[in-house]
Amino acid sequence: VADPSVVCVGTVALDTVETPFGRVEEAIGGSASYFVVAAAALGTRTQLVSVVGEDFPAAYRDLLAGRGADLAGLQALPGRCFRWAGRYDFDMNHRETLDTQLNVLSDFRPVLPEPYRAADFVFLANVDPVLQLSVLEQVRRPRVTMLDSMNFWIAGAREALTAALSRVDVVLMNEEEVRQYADTPNLLKGARQVLALGPRALIIKKGEYGAVLLAGDRYFYCPAYPLEDVKDPTGAGDAFAGGFLGYLAQQGEVTVAHLRRALVYGSVVASFTVEDFSVTRLAGVTRAEIATRYREFRDFTFVDAV
Amino acid sequence: VADPSVVCVGTVALDTVETPFGRVEEAIGGSASYFVVAAAALGTRTQLVSVVGEDFPAAYRDLLAGRGADLAGLQALPGRCFRWAGRYDFDMNHRETLDTQLNVLSDFRPVLPEPYRAADFVFLANVDPVLQLSVLEQVRRPRVTMLDSMNFWIAGAREALTAALSRVDVVLMNEEEVRQYADTPNLLKGARQVLALGPRALIIKKGEYGAVLLAGDRYFYCPAYPLEDVKDPTGAGDAFAGGFLGYLAQQGEVTVAHLRRALVYGSVVASFTVEDFSVTRLAGVTRAEIATRYREFRDFTFVDAV
Repeated sequence: VADPSVVCVGTVALDTVETPFGRVEEAIGGSASYFVVAAAALGTRTQLVSVVGEDFPAAYRDLLAGRGADLAGLQALPGRCFRWAGRYDFDMNHRETLDTQLNVLSDFRPVLPEPYRAADFVFLANVDPVLQLSVLEQVRRPRVTMLDSMNFWIAGAREALTAALSRVDVVLMNEEEVRQYADTPNLLKGARQVLALGPRALIIKKGEYGAVLLAGDRYFYCPAYPLEDVKDPTGAGDAFAGGFLGYLAQQGEVTVAHLRRALVYGSVVASFTVEDFSVTRLAGVTRAEIATRYREFRDFTFVDAV
Repeated sequence: VADPSVVCVGTVALDTVETPFGRVEEAIGGSASYFVVAAAALGTRTQLVSVVGEDFPAAYRDLLAGRGADLAGLQALPGRCFRWAGRYDFDMNHRETLDTQLNVLSDFRPVLPEPYRAADFVFLANVDPVLQLSVLEQVRRPRVTMLDSMNFWIAGAREALTAALSRVDVVLMNEEEVRQYADTPNLLKGARQVLALGPRALIIKKGEYGAVLLAGDRYFYCPAYPLEDVKDPTGAGDAFAGGFLGYLAQQGEVTVAHLRRALVYGSVVASFTVEDFSVTRLAGVTRAEIATRYREFRDFTFVDAV
């Protein structure tokens, strides 16, 4: 297999996070950081497209480079880094945003360095769909494009988001986002509306209940890993995307069997992510640990024929 | 395989149910009715222990008998049947009780006819744990006993419920009930507390997200069947129990593989149950339809080794 090229367009942030299990201040975060480290856990390098300020710590740049990230597309702009602060209660499914400082993110206009434009795999993390569309204009013939979004864009940039959804291969949304976008309480009906726009697959994130992949008439469910102590759920969705595309990029072709495995690998790396703050656990995970957990995931749902 | 004997102790009710998809008045309902019809769908007869009033329609008695139920333990008391009325919103996960008339249920003291006392399999549906304990006193050497409960008894009859939980093989609870009983937001920690009381297995119902079975260190997840139109969720949990024990009773021994299949069969019959009001769909389901859906369930979570 040739060294696969995966472009990720997203945020690099300094996160301050508080959970019942501890607190970190200005740890490395943002969708692109989680994606890079997760893809690297599966042996896949990322061509990063993001923006940081002048105060971006060299140690974090080294961390990303150390996980194989190509930083040619990481813009360093005058000003301060994007910062986010949030808090999780004992119910880890709900988080409260305490502070958001966009800083240099306000001026982010993704520009792909020439070598990136031949990318086979592209992840458009949750940013303004206008920017997501501009990235799709810049890549030449990607094999798989994947898009994440959120309630903010569904409500405020619906037209651009619809255009972007219509142009990608895989859509990643959580349950509420599907219901909100399709304006229906029924998740399956909502999923059909999203798929009718053109994507080959829709992955619905269900938080502690796992994730489901819908492709045509196919339905594939992967439960979440049962963890007694979730330390920090931040970044689980982006790590999932990194594991999913990171696995897929290593395969010769995109088959249904590979999509199923990719869903499990995404769930595997997401499960490691939430075991510690920031990318701490994810950056240290070994291939053997990933293989073991993949087998555990298989076993959770294995049932024989009758 | 000898004709297996499965005792079910629960309610027979006249249900009035309203959902966005319709309404039924005084349809046959109650935990024991759903259990009988679900077990019958897998070819298993139930020895019924319940109570009805003088106004119990002959047609409903015929329906239960037609599904192979032994009605020797169905007490007919002076007075009116137990009645329940409820309404579901578009969010089918929440229901509102509009009316509860206990009537003859207030005087229900389960008495097992002599032939029932040799039962191999016993289902104690959601009734007063004091009554559940009295049934456990009456059966001689059951191979598998299974208990369902609810928030009402957890709050109001904790001591008796704990005694009952300690004496059964399989416990059936929903997520909120596990959290409430164990007084912890963490489901896994709560599950360990329940299992520490003695049961061999705990099945946690997750509504639209399916069900999980925990036995020792084993963890087995079965998602719910993806349905576009859930017409009436009433009785899904009791039908699940009927499918689970109905399948298990047909097997020679209780192995891990059989428990896994039983979880899937329980989910299969529950999925048919909610496709129509009362036991309408469940009573008409064929073995071929069950086999097809079992294969679909397998396919939903199938992932190959790598």
